[in-house]
Amino acid sequence: MKLANLVGERFKERPSDCLIDSHALMVRGGYIKNVANGIYSSFTPLKRIVKKIEQIIREEMDNIDGQEVSFPVVLPASLWEESDRYDNVGDELLRFYDRNNGKYVLGMTHEEAAVHLVREYAQSYLKYPFMIYQIQTKFRDEARSRGGLIRVREFTMKDAYSFHSSQADLEDYYNKCHKAYERIFERVGLPQVVSVASDSGMMGGNLSHEFMLLSPVGEDSVVICKSCNYRANMDAAENIVNNTKDEMSNPLTLVHTPNINTIDDVCSFFNTTPDKTCKAVVYQKESDNKPVVLFIRGDYEVNEAKLKNILGCDIYPAEINNEHGLVAGFIGAYKLNTDCEVLFDRSLENTNNLICGANKVDYHYTGFDIGRDTGNVDYIDASKVTANGTCPNCKNNTLEISRGIEVGNIFQLGTRYTEAMNMTYLDEDGKRKYPVMGCYGIGVGRLAAAVCEARHDDYGPIWPMSVAPWQVHLCAVRVDDHKIKELADNIYNQLVKKGLEVIYDDRSVSAGVMFSDADLLGVPLRVIISPRNLKENCCEIVSRDKKISLKVKLDECIDQINDLVFTEFAE
Amino acid sequence: MKLANLVGERFKERPSDCLIDSHALMVRGGYIKNVANGIYSSFTPLKRIVKKIEQIIREEMDNIDGQEVSFPVVLPASLWEESDRYDNVGDELLRFYDRNNGKYVLGMTHEEAAVHLVREYAQSYLKYPFMIYQIQTKFRDEARSRGGLIRVREFTMKDAYSFHSSQADLEDYYNKCHKAYERIFERVGLPQVVSVASDSGMMGGNLSHEFMLLSPVGEDSVVICKSCNYRANMDAAENIVNNTKDEMSNPLTLVHTPNINTIDDVCSFFNTTPDKTCKAVVYQKESDNKPVVLFIRGDYEVNEAKLKNILGCDIYPAEINNEHGLVAGFIGAYKLNTDCEVLFDRSLENTNNLICGANKVDYHYTGFDIGRDTGNVDYIDASKVTANGTCPNCKNNTLEISRGIEVGNIFQLGTRYTEAMNMTYLDEDGKRKYPVMGCYGIGVGRLAAAVCEARHDDYGPIWPMSVAPWQVHLCAVRVDDHKIKELADNIYNQLVKKGLEVIYDDRSVSAGVMFSDADLLGVPLRVIISPRNLKENCCEIVSRDKKISLKVKLDECIDQINDLVFTEFAE
Repeated sequence: MKLANLVGERFKERPSDCLIDSHALMVRGGYIKNVANGIYSSFTPLKRIVKKIEQIIREEMDNIDGQEVSFPVVLPASLWEESDRYDNVGDELLRFYDRNNGKYVLGMTHEEAAVHLVREYAQSYLKYPFMIYQIQTKFRDEARSRGGLIRVREFTMKDAYSFHSSQADLEDYYNKCHKAYERIFERVGLPQVVSVASDSGMMGGNLSHEFMLLSPVGEDSVVICKSCNYRANMDAAENIVNNTKDEMSNPLTLVHTPNINTIDDVCSFFNTTPDKTCKAVVYQKESDNKPVVLFIRGDYEVNEAKLKNILGCDIYPAEINNEHGLVAGFIGAYKLNTDCEVLFDRSLENTNNLICGANKVDYHYTGFDIGRDTGNVDYIDASKVTANGTCPNCKNNTLEISRGIEVGNIFQLGTRYTEAMNMTYLDEDGKRKYPVMGCYGIGVGRLAAAVCEARHDDYGPIWPMSVAPWQVHLCAVRVDDHKIKELADNIYNQLVKKGLEVIYDDRSVSAGVMFSDADLLGVPLRVIISPRNLKENCCEIVSRDKKISLKVKLDECIDQINDLVFTEFAE
Repeated sequence: MKLANLVGERFKERPSDCLIDSHALMVRGGYIKNVANGIYSSFTPLKRIVKKIEQIIREEMDNIDGQEVSFPVVLPASLWEESDRYDNVGDELLRFYDRNNGKYVLGMTHEEAAVHLVREYAQSYLKYPFMIYQIQTKFRDEARSRGGLIRVREFTMKDAYSFHSSQADLEDYYNKCHKAYERIFERVGLPQVVSVASDSGMMGGNLSHEFMLLSPVGEDSVVICKSCNYRANMDAAENIVNNTKDEMSNPLTLVHTPNINTIDDVCSFFNTTPDKTCKAVVYQKESDNKPVVLFIRGDYEVNEAKLKNILGCDIYPAEINNEHGLVAGFIGAYKLNTDCEVLFDRSLENTNNLICGANKVDYHYTGFDIGRDTGNVDYIDASKVTANGTCPNCKNNTLEISRGIEVGNIFQLGTRYTEAMNMTYLDEDGKRKYPVMGCYGIGVGRLAAAVCEARHDDYGPIWPMSVAPWQVHLCAVRVDDHKIKELADNIYNQLVKKGLEVIYDDRSVSAGVMFSDADLLGVPLRVIISPRNLKENCCEIVSRDKKISLKVKLDECIDQINDLVFTEFAE
């Protein structure tokens, strides 16, 4: 098509509200327009990219025997009540009423709908395994949408659901899907995406992985071991702490510490370091608002996702108001007289000679020895991994922490949903059983943004051929010269006839405007017809990534362009 | 793919809640599953059909220079407030609040979103004309969803919006789109679809057409002239009534008519026919609840859609409670003393000697002469056209009334939305103007159901090749015979290698089960490998519509099947 007709504006200035490059470039290049908080319309260039990404995903899903179906966007609350998620998922689940006061939700994930679709069908073990998937609009009422298409409220997602008659079969399929995901990310131009062990969160189930594009603008923290293959989301990474006790445990000593109630204060006062302190962090449970006290070594931070999973419910930072025997700023594990739940992070295991609160205003103890002074406790893993921490796999102190954009996830769900929704089948042995499920998601719009984030320069995206909105960007410089116009029209027609996707710029604008627009559209191959080239009976072929820059005789250019599109740039 | 793996159940019994054939067959054939009132999930066969229909629509929209974009499903109320539709559209617009109490709606049409997307872009006349379209999920909270996919609440729709710098240009494009729609309906297998003039309803604008598949199960009434080309939706058809007065007007005479208060009662009492009576129909306006009295010839019925358009607001049948001077059962046009709006349908024009209420309990007048007794009145067209009525175009009494399923619609919107939303452009003459808009819709799921409704027999749908879920249905009868199995596998692999879409039934089931399943899937070509055929070194090729039934030598069958798919069955 002609660029002159392409609906959408392109401009130079970076919008001040765009914090990340892909967001800025997608706004500047006429890819998206914001409609409301976390809700976008897409212009044609993005729509074309998205359709190509969808087709790649579809091919790879079909390739692992997926069957494309579709579930509704609007789901009756009754389905989410069956799985017990209607009341247990937070405000991100948008709930509303229809004209007859029926309760509905906007689908943000479709485990319930998937079970609903197949539970009458799959009553015999002979029907298993199978996988169904859809590519459909979803809505998640995020508290904080940000980063353009990276975190939105309305999004298009491929979500797949597999059903199996054994855990072993699920695991086989899970691995197949893992490989299919690797192929998808490679085909869309992101071979560097890595999978990391993840926290299953609200999905339930046992094992899950996220696929991460490592990027400084990512929202997730990823723990990666430099020595071995270990990779995990911060929320799923085990924190290994190797404490060694001082040879001698000093006696517990009560010290008057007026107005000393932060770890920093304590360290200054006692001239020590945070690792020699035991701090108390207090949360309240979303379910019953009761406080929970977690003791943790002073230099570690709580990972709230891990704590949530241990407690089995949402938590929020507590307001400490001297009820429950808690003395704000001076809570200590020794002789804490409280009716609250009290937990100990494993960062305290095998410690002595720590400083801790004395449960009395303006007093701390020194010489706290956790084993001696609190008796036997069960330690939990609720602290954040730190850089150079110990790898849970190879045990070297070679953990690194990076940022990542989550572009996909896969979950082993087990029987979480089939049990809740009473989906059963008759097994070979004549017994009724619950099938085990897996689910597998990819956010299509976010993936497009991630490709842009990973592949761009200051002037625009550098789309890989596989997902580029067009394959060739034809620029006719100086169309007022009728020879240029005629030649460019001719080349355009020939390329289109070959079946190539061409965006054709025949506007009467300067080469500068033309090229900056082309940069913003990020089409992999640019073909330039200009008076200077014409003199040499040539056209110029330049790749957006600057790796190719050729002068090609006009009578060879169509074949050359075709070759470049289908061989040089093919995967 | 193998039929044995296809997710979804097929069964023989017609579900009792399915009133129309397409609904019953789509349930029986494993195409759809109901999730909630008017909300369905689709299984793979329907998804495949829908993708093909979408692709045909996409090609025809691209062919008239459409640019595919996407708008959100969830729209901020503010956009609908700009166009003044937030408060004025009924309960079918689903309104809700997000977690921050922001007002939102589920998009059921996207004029506002389309204007929002392009109003900064299209500020110069040089940008016009252009058309943008999307294929996206919509939600319309119908009071009565019915007929499977014919009338649902959640549906996929292609909606297109064109923008023009003159009415003439809009009209040109409107005609182009009309032709594109004809091609679409022809390509999906419904060349019999006709366009009819329609009522623009809540969309606003001047001229509109609906595309109707005439069908006894249609929800719309369509008026068609047997003598000329006139076709209109009942709601848009002008009712022409040619009255001739009796030579003599009798004097008005008050008659005591105890308990005579329906037209039937009146006719029995006076021994006359309804066309000699003047009846009063009373509505209340949705806006202020005030009654409106419409007088109409006793044998005609009110068309509420026409009346709504005249009044400019929704109406509902009134409860008459002797306020406003209205005497229930005896309302007459002579000396009616009321503060209500009083209207006269044109079916009363040029009448005399009618019987009408006397505005007094148990009394009627005879000898009512509307011209003489009420003075000059403006007649409106608010009555329903009747069979054998007068064609507004050719004036013959050759109107027929049929039922139709609306499968598409096109509207000339004028500046209804661009004015309300202040979208302007600078014209050639340097003046700011409002662009004129057109909009063009096709319901994708409904179209699939309409194809099924038009093309089926008692055993299942008869899908045309262009939209069939698969092109070839391969049946291997008696796969326990290893020769049969080997041969069928081989043919399957060859067909797939040729690029054909094949559903392969290699189950150990009877030929009866196999063929009834094949009937329900409605694939155009069936290829049967059976012991009997094998003896003759043949396979059987039968078309779903029974027009083709061949025995073909095995070594020729692949080519023959390929030819049938791509020539015989191609458009």
